[in-house]
Formats: sequence, C-alpha cells, structure tokens
Amino acid sequence: MEDVAIIGVGQSNFSRKCGITIKELVFEAFKEAMEGLDIVNGDIEASIICSSQYDPQRSPENPISEYLGLTPHPTFLIENACAASSTGLRAAWSFIKSGLHKIVAVIGVEKMSGQTSREAAERMGRAYDVTWESSFGLTMPGGYSMHARAHMAQYGTTEEQLAKVRVKNSYYSVKNPKATFKKALTLKEIFESMVVASPLKMLDCCANADGASCMILAEGGIAKTIAKIPVWIAGLGTGSDAGVSRRKSFTSFICARQAAEQAYAMAGVGPKDINVAEVHDCFTIAEIIAYEDLGFAEPGEGPRLLEEKETYLEGRIPVNLDGGLLCKGHPIGATGGSQIRTIVKQLRGDAGEIQVKDAEVGLAHNIGGIGHYANVTILRR
Amino acid sequence: MEDVAIIGVGQSNFSRKCGITIKELVFEAFKEAMEGLDIVNGDIEASIICSSQYDPQRSPENPISEYLGLTPHPTFLIENACAASSTGLRAAWSFIKSGLHKIVAVIGVEKMSGQTSREAAERMGRAYDVTWESSFGLTMPGGYSMHARAHMAQYGTTEEQLAKVRVKNSYYSVKNPKATFKKALTLKEIFESMVVASPLKMLDCCANADGASCMILAEGGIAKTIAKIPVWIAGLGTGSDAGVSRRKSFTSFICARQAAEQAYAMAGVGPKDINVAEVHDCFTIAEIIAYEDLGFAEPGEGPRLLEEKETYLEGRIPVNLDGGLLCKGHPIGATGGSQIRTIVKQLRGDAGEIQVKDAEVGLAHNIGGIGHYANVTILRR
Repeated sequence: MEDVAIIGVGQSNFSRKCGITIKELVFEAFKEAMEGLDIVNGDIEASIICSSQYDPQRSPENPISEYLGLTPHPTFLIENACAASSTGLRAAWSFIKSGLHKIVAVIGVEKMSGQTSREAAERMGRAYDVTWESSFGLTMPGGYSMHARAHMAQYGTTEEQLAKVRVKNSYYSVKNPKATFKKALTLKEIFESMVVASPLKMLDCCANADGASCMILAEGGIAKTIAKIPVWIAGLGTGSDAGVSRRKSFTSFICARQAAEQAYAMAGVGPKDINVAEVHDCFTIAEIIAYEDLGFAEPGEGPRLLEEKETYLEGRIPVNLDGGLLCKGHPIGATGGSQIRTIVKQLRGDAGEIQVKDAEVGLAHNIGGIGHYANVTILRR
Repeated sequence: MEDVAIIGVGQSNFSRKCGITIKELVFEAFKEAMEGLDIVNGDIEASIICSSQYDPQRSPENPISEYLGLTPHPTFLIENACAASSTGLRAAWSFIKSGLHKIVAVIGVEKMSGQTSREAAERMGRAYDVTWESSFGLTMPGGYSMHARAHMAQYGTTEEQLAKVRVKNSYYSVKNPKATFKKALTLKEIFESMVVASPLKMLDCCANADGASCMILAEGGIAKTIAKIPVWIAGLGTGSDAGVSRRKSFTSFICARQAAEQAYAMAGVGPKDINVAEVHDCFTIAEIIAYEDLGFAEPGEGPRLLEEKETYLEGRIPVNLDGGLLCKGHPIGATGGSQIRTIVKQLRGDAGEIQVKDAEVGLAHNIGGIGHYANVTILRR
C-alpha cells in the first residue's frame, strides 16, 4: 500500500500575531516545502487548503492558490476543526491513489490574530453542537477540563503530572525556531499561572496562533525521482464521535482509538514499532490521553511515561519534540501539517538537535474539536 | 473508468426561510437519497459535508453526521464556494476509487436565512480577493454584470435574450415542487423588476436560499447489488482561475472550458452526445456563457439556442429543466448536489413531467464564485 509519499514539508513561523496576509503566511510554508524538489509550481496538479477561516477572506483557496502559482489547477478547502490538515492529507492520498492526480499540495493556514481571544473562544465553542452544547457556555478549555477531572478521579492523575507535559514540551520548544513560545518552563511557573478552567491553568493550554503548513505528496514512482528522501505514507486511520453530551467516556477519545487501530493495521505495525510521535496536546491532559489511546501506555498509565521520561528524546517513545501545540501555538488548520513536518524531518534524519537516532517509523495524532474527529498517520522512511 | 456509481440522490425543499435547523434540513435530503436502497446508515463509510457555513454552527459535519446516524465513521467539510458539492463528489469518487471507502455520502447544506440579504451579499463578496477586489465594493451581481456587458459588447447579446433564460427556467420551475419560486414569468415581468447591477435586474438573479442535497456513491460491484438503477460517473473535470481583476476574458469562464474538456475526454463523449444538462445559472448571463463553455454553442452563439428553443424539453439539448438556480434558489453548498439529483433522475427515467426521452448521458456544470472554480460531471445510465 505504500505507494504515496510525502516529498516536501514546510511551515511558517507560528506566532501570536503575524502581521502579514494569509497569502504571505502560506507562502513561507510552501517555499520551505518546495526546497530541493525538482519540480515547478505548475507541476502540482491540485491543492487542498485546510482552514477554519478565522480570517475575513471567504473561499481563501482561490487567492492562496493563485498567489502560489497553482492556477488553473483545482483547489478547494477542507474544514475539520483542528484535524483539518491531516484530513487534507487523507484526501490527497486518495486523489493520488485513485489516479486522478500525481502531485498534490496540502496547505494548512489560520490567522487568528484578527479576533480577540474572547471572540475566538466563543467562535471555537460553536464547534460544539449550537443547539445543545455551546449555547450553554461550553468552551474548549471547559471541555478538556472535564476530561482532566475524569482522568484524575478514575486514575488518580495529579495536577503536577498534567504540568509535566508542559515542562517536557517547553524544554524542547527552545530548539524550535518556528515555535510561538521558546522558553523552558518550571513546574512552579505552570502552577502559578492563572486558572482557566480548573484543573487547567493558562500554561496547561495551548494558544491561538497565526501560522501555515504545507505538505507535498506524490505518486511513488515520481516521488523517487524528484525527492532525495521520500517519506512513505504507511498507515491512515480516522474516525468521529458523538457530541460531548452523548459521550460514554471522558478518559479516552474513542475516535482516536479507532483511528490508531486502523492506522496500525494498514501499516502492519504496533505501538512498540513507533520510533517518534507527534500527538495533539492542545491541553496537557490531551497528551496523556493520547499516550493511552495510541497504546503507548495502558489506560491510566499515561502519566508514568512522563514520570519515567519515556517520552523524552532519550526515552522509549519520544513525543512532541518540536514543543507540541502547547509551545508552538495552535493555528487550527495548520497544526496537523506542522506535526507531519516534524515527523518527516525525523525520518529523513534532518531533525537537528531533536533527532531521534535511526528513526524509521513515525506517527502523527491529530484531534479535531474535543474528540469529534481524529486522524492517525503512520509514516515510514 | 466507470466503476463508481451514484446510488441515491435527494434534496430538501429549497426556500427563502426554512424555519428548521441545518440538521433537520439535511435529514430531508438524506431520507430521499436512502429511499429504496438496501443499506442502513452505518453502511455509509464516510460523509463529506459541503457548505460555506452561513449558519452559526462551526464544524457542522459533526452534529450533522451524528444526527444522520453516521458516527463513528469519518466526516469532514468541503468549502469551494458555489461548487462545493460537485467538488465533494470528486473527493468521494477518489475515496472509493482508491479503495479507502466503499460507500460515501456527499451532503450539501446552506441555511442563509439567518442573515439579511445585505449581510449575505457582503459576506459572499468576500469570496473575491479581500485585499484587491471585495474591499472596493465588488459583489456577485456586480461581477456577473461585467460579464453580461462584455457579452453584449462583443456579440451583440441583448437584455431580452438574457431574460429569455429566466423565461425558460421559470416555465419549468412550475413542475418542480421543491423549488423556491414556482411561477412562470413573462419577459415583461423580468424587464420590470428592479435593476440590481445593470444590465442585470432582480429577476436575472438567483436568490439566496435554505436547502440541502445528498448524493450517495458506491463502488461499482456494490452499487449493482443495492441500487435498482445505478448511475455511473463517466467523466470528471475541474479547474480554477485567477481573481477577476487578473482575467483575460469576460465572455467565458476559462476554468469551465478546462473542466468540460477534461470531463468529455474522461467519458469519451462530446457535447453532441449529451442528452440533458444542468448548468450553473446563478445569473441569466451565466447560463448563456455555460452553453458556449460546454460546447453546446459556439462563442457568441449561446443566445440562439434560446431563440430556437433548443434548450427546452423538446430541443436538441434540454438545460435546467428543474428551474435552475434562478428558480430553485441557490443554497450555496447544496446546489451542485441538487443539479446532480436532477440528472440522475433523468437517467433513471424517473423525471416525471420533465423527462427527456431515452436520456442516456447527462451533464452537470457547477461554478464556484465567479468562475473561480468549475466542475463538470458527466453521468451515464
């Protein structure tokens, strides 16, 4: 099944306020993705723009693809909350595998700085069902705090263990020049930050950001001729779940478990075969749940991976060595592509200070909403 | 190549104000599409929601797919301006052809009545480039009026000829119980309607609407066992164009010509082989340009098809027998699916009063923005 490869990856700087247009933001990511490839813009037969459209531009796929020199090839937009660009990857894989296109660009972008935090939080909240959920004031931190409380109640997880996710990710963020926050944080600093939705404090939460990402995919035969080191798409898994008010469990995301199962089966590997992973740590609790949903730890055992530093660079399964959403910032539509970029660089042996030695198989785990959607992607060198 | 079929089609009533939620609106379309199929909701392996999201619900794919009983299968949203659901069809085709899924639902929905006409027009205008175009006040009627003026200047097309598009489509709208406007109009009524953007008058323009559409696609072998009359996807064509301020021609949509060429080549047919068509008549001028872009008439000769009634039911190539966007109303994300529904019903021999005798090959032409995107789909019985 491994006949579609990622041949280029890029991302813009992620920041709280980019000060440029979405076209310029995307160009930064596209430029990096095209570096070293023996193709011109016109060789890209389709583009998929992945975004939740926080910017005033409607139907941004047209101005973006024209700006990148991709006209008159087809372009369209995928929205899938925070999982948009991994869903875009899945669609691009299908376009290539079905024979419709040979080279496809998947471009994630979000410019959130045009809205106040309050406006963005209200809007983001409306990803919950507007009839039965968001209308009662549920926000994203509120939703994830319920998951944190449930995990604490069921497994005895502590606030200190949650904070240790941020300690790890902030430790590595210093090595990522494109991250929004590049400062190693202490447990004390995290504990002293303002409570947002107990037990989650400000530094347990990722931040809205401006940013773009780009992945260029190609059919296998072509990939081998135009990329130095193609990275193969070995496994794809996906799923959705009911609205939060109809969920059975708050200590796991059912759709992420389903996505992981599908991706492992398609790739013919298991959790123990993964050398490096990026997981969707929009809140500290989310990374712990991801460990468990992906099979890196048994249910309730996620915090132990942190205590034993198993998810650090030297550990058994290094996770979020690029700083994660918590430190990079979370420009919604761009996040999934940024995760894949990190894994691709690892598998190419091009990850610099955070390089996992001899990484052969990597995994990216991207959640949309609060477990509304999940994509798990397994890549192989 | 004809190994993906459409096995079910449906649409809600299109109206100026539906008074129900988007979930209920979609249910109407889904229910009709499922009629007579020997499957249950859970057999649908993925759903693609196509929308420009005029409703307050963000990420509507989750509440919609849950409401339809499609959870935990994957779901995501495609936006492609007014071409969204034909782009959704293309993506669904790829998912099936690539082997990822066997049965996929493509669901278009728009609920525009929550906004005033002025709000909707401003928002729709922002599908033009916000830096260089919409910021100077360009709206959709304004853009299409430039096309009408150009066609009049270059080919001597008259306002009366434009109005004849609406006369034809309104004549047939009476036979479509799901259309917003079901009244045969006279040339005089059209001429006396308020000028919106000269030469386009109110009745040269389609209306914003609330509505939903649904197409269910299946892999060929399965299609034959679960649908009485599968309708085969024979040709797919697509394209995009630069922003309007960088266009070379205002008498044609380059991307529609490209899409038609691709679709004809893939299906192995030409314009003369098409027995029935639905074209994107968001404004009267758009239908005339579509005749020419699709090769039904030479450039500048489009109006003659109307004068000679060639696009009426008894003519050489009947077009928009369901009333077109002009009379059905134009719920952006739902429109492409509604066009395909009409063609599918024709090819099944199930079109009632508007049935084209022995229709074997049909075509749907769906434009996004003002020639920003185009999809041409050719279906075969």
